[in-house]
Amino acid sequence: MTGFGDLHRPGDPLVLANVWDVGSARAMVAAGFPAVGTTSLGVAASHGLPDATRAARDQTLACADALTHAKLGCFITCDVEDGFSDDAAEVADLVLRLGVDGVNIEDETHGRLIPAADHAAKIRAVKDRAPDVFVNARTDGFWLGDGILADAIDRAKQYVDAGADGVFLPGRLDAATIAAFVEAVDAPVNVLASASLSVRQLAELGVARVSTGSLPYRAALRHAVLAATAVRDGGPLPEAMGYDEVQALHS
Amino acid sequence: MTGFGDLHRPGDPLVLANVWDVGSARAMVAAGFPAVGTTSLGVAASHGLPDATRAARDQTLACADALTHAKLGCFITCDVEDGFSDDAAEVADLVLRLGVDGVNIEDETHGRLIPAADHAAKIRAVKDRAPDVFVNARTDGFWLGDGILADAIDRAKQYVDAGADGVFLPGRLDAATIAAFVEAVDAPVNVLASASLSVRQLAELGVARVSTGSLPYRAALRHAVLAATAVRDGGPLPEAMGYDEVQALHS
Repeated sequence: MTGFGDLHRPGDPLVLANVWDVGSARAMVAAGFPAVGTTSLGVAASHGLPDATRAARDQTLACADALTHAKLGCFITCDVEDGFSDDAAEVADLVLRLGVDGVNIEDETHGRLIPAADHAAKIRAVKDRAPDVFVNARTDGFWLGDGILADAIDRAKQYVDAGADGVFLPGRLDAATIAAFVEAVDAPVNVLASASLSVRQLAELGVARVSTGSLPYRAALRHAVLAATAVRDGGPLPEAMGYDEVQALHS
Repeated sequence: MTGFGDLHRPGDPLVLANVWDVGSARAMVAAGFPAVGTTSLGVAASHGLPDATRAARDQTLACADALTHAKLGCFITCDVEDGFSDDAAEVADLVLRLGVDGVNIEDETHGRLIPAADHAAKIRAVKDRAPDVFVNARTDGFWLGDGILADAIDRAKQYVDAGADGVFLPGRLDAATIAAFVEAVDAPVNVLASASLSVRQLAELGVARVSTGSLPYRAALRHAVLAATAVRDGGPLPEAMGYDEVQALHS
């Protein structure tokens, strides 16, 4: 039986469609995606909360619960920010409660990298409590600003040693950085989709997973507003799903 | 003090931005809309439920609760399908609990028009219990298919006699139909935005409110999927809000 981990193929990456509720998830499944991941920005913002501040812990749990009960027929992975806690055991409890196929856990709290050992402890605790959950350890040096490749590799290795099934390096990355990271890290590597490197190019660099991240949510929100302002101000209406097409997703 | 009703000006219509959660509502307020309305399709579908089947009663209440607590700084009106009940007193209780500035109530249940007297009874009960709530009585003959203008006018008059503050005539309408309806009905008239008649043209016909309806939700969902498929299949990424722009809505 194919598991979620099997979709992480270096050179033939999983493209992860990121979602924030059952409606967006069903739409992605209908478009042929074999797995959906929650976007922490989308989950927080749709509820009026800021991302990456631990504000949306309850909403993240509720979203995972809704997705697992929606019979999506696809794998589900959940972004849990930094696990919403400094305490490794609490992070492990949370992941077990989610009941999903995978999680992302990031090594920043309130915009600062935490010690690698502390993040490794979270990963170890999660894999102890929920060994079947695919743990994607995210290292945020490049996401937060001017990342240092050697530091990111060093962190990634500690996370893999702690049991991480994959490593996620978000941020603005050039091809050489990605290639060096893939070469150095003995686990499937996940990067964010970008306008500058296509999935085909990322595949050639050995990437195993490409996340759409918050892009689908941010595109959705922009076009909701564009639809309303086009009506108000005059102008062409943006392309939209049909009413019956939306209804068919949920019948 | 300006109330929600005052925004309904025949010839200078309110353009209502329709939303389905706090995130979409804050984005619409940031774009300058003075009022938001829930889209019953969006509220239901975002939770994985079909519209217009009474399935999303709890989600409608939860959405109204979230919007009223989000300090949006705009008027809020809520689409309650047919009131989720045949019982006028139950509909009135629901509207009172919502705590919003206005509601839409439609005269169809499970895809069929109900007797006008039954709908009028719901409107009367709501206005008795919640006199300050702007009740927009929706008549669905044209929405369901081949509407008959005389019937729609007859229903609208009964609803206005029962206390409705405005009348909503959704569906595909030509200019002559709208003009005749506005002429015959002694209350602000609401129609859906369409690609064929601009807000300026609707204003000239005497319309007092133009709803974006489910269009913003359907545009959002389409562009979420387009973003993910553009990443997967190659192609230009759709326009999206910036990450910081989304965060700023909620800080």
